[in-house]
Amino acid sequence: MRFHLDSLFNPRSVAVVGASDDPAKLGFHVMKSLVEGGYRGLTWPVNPGRREVMGRPACSSVAQTPHPPDLAILVVPAARVVDQVRMCAQRGVRSIVIISAGFKELDDASGADLQDDVARLATEARIPVVGPNTFGLVNLHAKLNASFTPQFSQLEPGHVTLLSQSGGMSHLLAFLGMGAGVGFSKVVGLGNRCNVEFAHLLEYLVEDPTTRVIAMYVEGLDAPRALLEETRRLRGRKPMVIYKVGKGDVADLASRSHTGSLAGRHELYQGAFRQAGLLTADSAEALLDASVALARCPLPAGRRVAILSGQAGPAVAACDVCEAEGLAVIPFQSTTQEAIDQLLPPLAMRTNPVDMGPAWHDSVAMRAIVQVAMEAPDTDAILLLIMFASANEGVLRALSDLLTPRTPSKPIVACLSAPPGVWERELKDLVRDGALVNYPTPERAARALAFLWSAAGCGR
Amino acid sequence: MRFHLDSLFNPRSVAVVGASDDPAKLGFHVMKSLVEGGYRGLTWPVNPGRREVMGRPACSSVAQTPHPPDLAILVVPAARVVDQVRMCAQRGVRSIVIISAGFKELDDASGADLQDDVARLATEARIPVVGPNTFGLVNLHAKLNASFTPQFSQLEPGHVTLLSQSGGMSHLLAFLGMGAGVGFSKVVGLGNRCNVEFAHLLEYLVEDPTTRVIAMYVEGLDAPRALLEETRRLRGRKPMVIYKVGKGDVADLASRSHTGSLAGRHELYQGAFRQAGLLTADSAEALLDASVALARCPLPAGRRVAILSGQAGPAVAACDVCEAEGLAVIPFQSTTQEAIDQLLPPLAMRTNPVDMGPAWHDSVAMRAIVQVAMEAPDTDAILLLIMFASANEGVLRALSDLLTPRTPSKPIVACLSAPPGVWERELKDLVRDGALVNYPTPERAARALAFLWSAAGCGR
Repeated sequence: MRFHLDSLFNPRSVAVVGASDDPAKLGFHVMKSLVEGGYRGLTWPVNPGRREVMGRPACSSVAQTPHPPDLAILVVPAARVVDQVRMCAQRGVRSIVIISAGFKELDDASGADLQDDVARLATEARIPVVGPNTFGLVNLHAKLNASFTPQFSQLEPGHVTLLSQSGGMSHLLAFLGMGAGVGFSKVVGLGNRCNVEFAHLLEYLVEDPTTRVIAMYVEGLDAPRALLEETRRLRGRKPMVIYKVGKGDVADLASRSHTGSLAGRHELYQGAFRQAGLLTADSAEALLDASVALARCPLPAGRRVAILSGQAGPAVAACDVCEAEGLAVIPFQSTTQEAIDQLLPPLAMRTNPVDMGPAWHDSVAMRAIVQVAMEAPDTDAILLLIMFASANEGVLRALSDLLTPRTPSKPIVACLSAPPGVWERELKDLVRDGALVNYPTPERAARALAFLWSAAGCGR
Repeated sequence: MRFHLDSLFNPRSVAVVGASDDPAKLGFHVMKSLVEGGYRGLTWPVNPGRREVMGRPACSSVAQTPHPPDLAILVVPAARVVDQVRMCAQRGVRSIVIISAGFKELDDASGADLQDDVARLATEARIPVVGPNTFGLVNLHAKLNASFTPQFSQLEPGHVTLLSQSGGMSHLLAFLGMGAGVGFSKVVGLGNRCNVEFAHLLEYLVEDPTTRVIAMYVEGLDAPRALLEETRRLRGRKPMVIYKVGKGDVADLASRSHTGSLAGRHELYQGAFRQAGLLTADSAEALLDASVALARCPLPAGRRVAILSGQAGPAVAACDVCEAEGLAVIPFQSTTQEAIDQLLPPLAMRTNPVDMGPAWHDSVAMRAIVQVAMEAPDTDAILLLIMFASANEGVLRALSDLLTPRTPSKPIVACLSAPPGVWERELKDLVRDGALVNYPTPERAARALAFLWSAAGCGR
């Protein structure tokens, strides 16, 4: 079954079934998200017991909205959801998000039966349903916050789209992203996956102009083959990164989707993911780190990394990661090396990695070294690692002058670290202007660069 | 050779040899660190060409200071260091930090010769020397910032002491720590290790009342046996965590201390470290994460972890890490389980891990579940994972009421995550009051807990 998913993400009108003015109800928080998020389409609260909700006239049912809504968000008790879905189908609603819980995630069979009814009704009417048992979804580019968490609207619009089986993980990744200035296009909580699966969303997202990278958090898959086939089919269209949890026995049981599945299955999954062209992350942080680099950097043409570091230690730590991840930190060709030698005093680490430390007081030399690496034919990517010290305060200004504006041809992945409040504006500008991506540690920067190399299709 | 190291960390007077008013000189930044850091002892700038530096009367040489300084910080060209050390010895200086570079880290032999001269002179005079080629050292509890980076004084005084072979890594860890509110006792850049080695500092630090955990960043070790013997001897006195880089061939060469050493040596080191009772971290972030938990949490009596989560996804991710790290996420005994069952509706995950999600709107129930786990005889540690959502905003207040003040008997390691600005004060209070430690992700929280278990001496 193929759905028209655009009404989920770019609806002209939204009905909130179960809208409420009572903060103890999720229907309150969903209304708040829509209203405070600045959604520019029509919003129709639906609640038979109210004349208005949050100052907007309420409809007594979805049948009473001025027009058939493009999107209906259901936040009513599970027992009433089937009726509401039927009403939505009759009314010509084009898409549904079911936030209500109490379906397949329950221990007893009644929940699964209820969910089957919902799926059958919706699929017959060709209505895509996100959920049930989800926090909702967000499209930052449409200012659509169709979730129970108004704070999702604080995300910066950008080019990472997150598909997640867990609302909690979506919240975590969003909050981490807010702190790090990550730009998101869409965040989708798939919940129990009634009739919209990962595969459907991937097909839509590879065509979505505001999505450059697709990040996925997965617990259990009822139909892993469908996802793998779809990713194989879409391979090369856009980078896709997956973080699959449920490695161990307890974790696997806890994810509840593969009760009784074998230990070791995790490794099978990882292999199958890689074969299908999916990049695999091993933590929430790695999923986000990879997505940021993939959304913002050009892919390297090869695996040769120049490590340019303001201090030796961070370079060694990054070098470890590069080597473990299959990147090449190899000696420069003579012309590159000669150019660098002329910029640094005759101290130890002038070869790759380059310790620019001896030039700490000399922003001009640091700038020139970075320029050499940017132009060097024997360098495919740059890892730039500079820890603030009182004496090197000016280096970011010198680098800004070199790096912006430019059309980046090689990725520059950085760990430029400073005390809170220092270098913040310069860093923000460098990142905003696309000059580089920045990570909190050299190791995470190196790992993000390795994802770029993997995505270039030449790695691993 | 045993040294009296206390004059390095708690000097009554400090001479800065090479003090300057010129921001292009490191001697300026060192003076700034001392003065702005609020050091309460006597500070004597030494510079024969100046009558005063930063408004303080300058001495023409270390021989002219009013009294023999407890600590002399040398920031003069390498060629002048030997003479200065000789003068310090004659003057009765009790300890020295040599910030100047240009010694053993140089490619040619002249640097090593110079360093040998320094070491011989200082050791004959029984003067401990930190450096050369170091950023310096900091003792937050004495407000002593004997480094070239004034911003180290922004660190919160606390109980983590960091010993680092890299100034860059010290800066990185300090900046990460500032962002996360980590409290430090001391930060020491060992530099080229002229006569003060890791082993000397460990012996001092196990007696240091403000040091609860010792974190080490190591590149190459000239005398690994000395360190291993010392840690074995001090085993059990205080937790020690080590992050050793230089795994790969290039990284190993780059660290320059083991030119030509064999690949695979890294694994030998890891094994030797563990046998000597050192905990091993595999990244800068892990080193800091482990140190924070070890400095602030009681050690668990066993390996049974209760995972209490506001959302299922983060619990599954944490569960993966727990299982991989040898922690036990096992079903509760009947009394514990019965108590939890009464607090949650009959949904899926009421066993370990416990998904408190269905009680999202019910802070009282969440509080009660945490209390059950705190008192449960079948639980040695608690992983508490709650992602903010608009509707659960009140949960931290309810938990504060339960968790503070208390004498913690079991570690509570948390990932309580929220948008910037939300929950910040509540979290700060909970951490300050010792109720829990908090990490940015469930995986990092779980890994930190695993370090507590390893430190308890029963693990791995």
